[in-house]
Amino acid sequence: MNYNPAELESLHAFYKNQLLGNTLPFWFPRSLDAEHGGYLFMRDRDGALLDDDKSVWFHGRAAWLLATLYNTVEPRQEWLEGAKSGIDFMNKYCFDTDGRMFFHMTRAGEPIRKRRYFFSETFAVIANAAYAKASGSAEAADRARELFGKCIEYATVPGMLEPKFTGTRPAKGIGVPMILMNTAQQLRETIGDPRCDALIDGFIAEIERDFVKDDIRCVMEQVAPDGSIIDHIDGRTLNPGHAIEGAWFILHEAKHRNNDPRLIALGCKMLDYMWERGWDTEYGGILYFRDVYDRPVQEYWQDMKFWWPHNETIIATLLAYTLTGDAKYAEWHRLVHNYAYRHFHDQEHGEWFGYLHRDGSVAQGAKGNLFKGPFHLPRQEWYCMQLLASLTGKEQVGEVLDLKKIKC
Amino acid sequence: MNYNPAELESLHAFYKNQLLGNTLPFWFPRSLDAEHGGYLFMRDRDGALLDDDKSVWFHGRAAWLLATLYNTVEPRQEWLEGAKSGIDFMNKYCFDTDGRMFFHMTRAGEPIRKRRYFFSETFAVIANAAYAKASGSAEAADRARELFGKCIEYATVPGMLEPKFTGTRPAKGIGVPMILMNTAQQLRETIGDPRCDALIDGFIAEIERDFVKDDIRCVMEQVAPDGSIIDHIDGRTLNPGHAIEGAWFILHEAKHRNNDPRLIALGCKMLDYMWERGWDTEYGGILYFRDVYDRPVQEYWQDMKFWWPHNETIIATLLAYTLTGDAKYAEWHRLVHNYAYRHFHDQEHGEWFGYLHRDGSVAQGAKGNLFKGPFHLPRQEWYCMQLLASLTGKEQVGEVLDLKKIKC
Repeated sequence: MNYNPAELESLHAFYKNQLLGNTLPFWFPRSLDAEHGGYLFMRDRDGALLDDDKSVWFHGRAAWLLATLYNTVEPRQEWLEGAKSGIDFMNKYCFDTDGRMFFHMTRAGEPIRKRRYFFSETFAVIANAAYAKASGSAEAADRARELFGKCIEYATVPGMLEPKFTGTRPAKGIGVPMILMNTAQQLRETIGDPRCDALIDGFIAEIERDFVKDDIRCVMEQVAPDGSIIDHIDGRTLNPGHAIEGAWFILHEAKHRNNDPRLIALGCKMLDYMWERGWDTEYGGILYFRDVYDRPVQEYWQDMKFWWPHNETIIATLLAYTLTGDAKYAEWHRLVHNYAYRHFHDQEHGEWFGYLHRDGSVAQGAKGNLFKGPFHLPRQEWYCMQLLASLTGKEQVGEVLDLKKIKC
Repeated sequence: MNYNPAELESLHAFYKNQLLGNTLPFWFPRSLDAEHGGYLFMRDRDGALLDDDKSVWFHGRAAWLLATLYNTVEPRQEWLEGAKSGIDFMNKYCFDTDGRMFFHMTRAGEPIRKRRYFFSETFAVIANAAYAKASGSAEAADRARELFGKCIEYATVPGMLEPKFTGTRPAKGIGVPMILMNTAQQLRETIGDPRCDALIDGFIAEIERDFVKDDIRCVMEQVAPDGSIIDHIDGRTLNPGHAIEGAWFILHEAKHRNNDPRLIALGCKMLDYMWERGWDTEYGGILYFRDVYDRPVQEYWQDMKFWWPHNETIIATLLAYTLTGDAKYAEWHRLVHNYAYRHFHDQEHGEWFGYLHRDGSVAQGAKGNLFKGPFHLPRQEWYCMQLLASLTGKEQVGEVLDLKKIKC
């Protein structure tokens, strides 16, 4: 069933209230480290600090979030200052002498671990770009563009990063074109960069050509360099929530390009394929891993429900619905939204639990760790709130909901 | 309640029948790779091959198992030949040019991944040592001793292996002294090595001094180099099944040293501490991870039940019982034995499932992968069968069960 305008208005209010009245207040201001700068995000269910270590990922992600709220919601000084604190901590401590970033730091800024991938760097790009827009800092803008160039190099020049595997069975993951596409989108929408459009075209073309398999209705997580399926356990493992995140990055691009029907069709079919693979028809929610041929997955926790695939699926279904008007997407959005806010949201202390058993019971109650903090949930609430604001605004509702001609 | 002699006889028969009539026939002969040598262990619930890749760990572990059965149960030619196949595959393909071993190979013997720790090497030591005893091969004996020397070097000479973490917060794990102790025990009991006794003394001293915490009744998984607790998430994380495996390595040493009462007391208290931490009083079974201060564990699957901690706890409780005669250990052995054979054992296709949800339901039904194959379960069934045979043999029952003077 379609959403009527009143339901869309009420969803908008819901996401806005959750973001500003529940999610953000869980993290801020208590996570700002007045002593060393940066953020203290490793928090228990009730917000108590579990560990004062710092994740470099989350310095980029949270600085991006705060600067983005400043840029798009309202120019609150506390958000700008909060973003600056994360940016300054990264600049001061999180770069190694080779220009790469660390992954895990002590509270005081000593490095504990560096990893062999460049996700810390991509989050630093979007943080610096959003902060540059918010503050007008030319230095942050330069840093964002320079780091983005390095990410492109790491992704494309063989031998730049130490490999985890030998060259015996080369493989590539959908994560790289996905994260670079989203990084380029963010860069373009904040400070602009002439490289972005062509790069985004290339990332989408690679995803479509090598990862999207129409014959088996599937988006692969990993393939051989030529796009063929690697028929071994890792190669067969699907990550439906991740592919659905990729789907909405493409739908977002479609919207940016005046509702490009080709991109709408591509994003929607990626969502369709991976909803079929990932939605748990028995308990509800998105299963973490599936095997492409329904064989057992090596990861024993494959049937758990993680918070972030639900954030990504809430965005993807709502975006697909607003771009196509297809009632199926409104239904899916209702299903995943209701499942998620019922099972993940902590009614008592706010924010979401991160990890549920397949049956929806909480497996581990902490709100923050090196991999979980203020990103997927507030991004989802912010993105959906902005999307719905654009729809429920005076002139735009009819226009967009009328797009039913595009069916996926 | 104590076990009476008839129960011990019946347990002996049970383990023997399971090992020879259920566990081994699941894996052999079908896992022997007639084309390339070595083993094909990545098998589904019913034994169908899921993946033809090969784990180097499991070539060492399975060759050890087959040679050990040949040495201690009966000299079946098929076991000797099976062991040789794994040894030959390792010798031919699994060593890198720097002398270190790979971790993950294709069926034909091309390397896919090498890791930064030396567990592949320790399993190759015990395989070669047991095979040397079985076959009389001086070459295998030399290789076992040489590789063991390298393992000691990797463990003790700083900089020999590439570190995963920076030097900011140095830590050491109980896994290294544990695995080296067990490797030395195996070496000593097959082909002998003059280094073993002194090394074992050192490993036990290190475990007792740095990892066993009497004040909080706990065996740490990781500590600072001086043995102090690192009050961060990783440092606080306990692995009860692993510590209980360490406990039985020490109880085994106690038995080897004519029931050394000091070592019996040490092994028993390690078991006591970690049974208290790990046994799930709600659903039964051993929980995978716990936090030393009962705070949330970062690993979301921390409350799952894995097969191998149950194998180790079955051995540890039976060994503690036979060494002390304390009825508490008979009770614990009953509890963990019954839980494990009820929930992990696959009544339909044999062998054990690897991964259960906390409530005991199967999370993933495959029998083999890169980390699971014929090791913990057959080792447990073999060890308990041998231990019980020694007790239920004519002259030894009374002698050993009379050891009630040693109370932990």
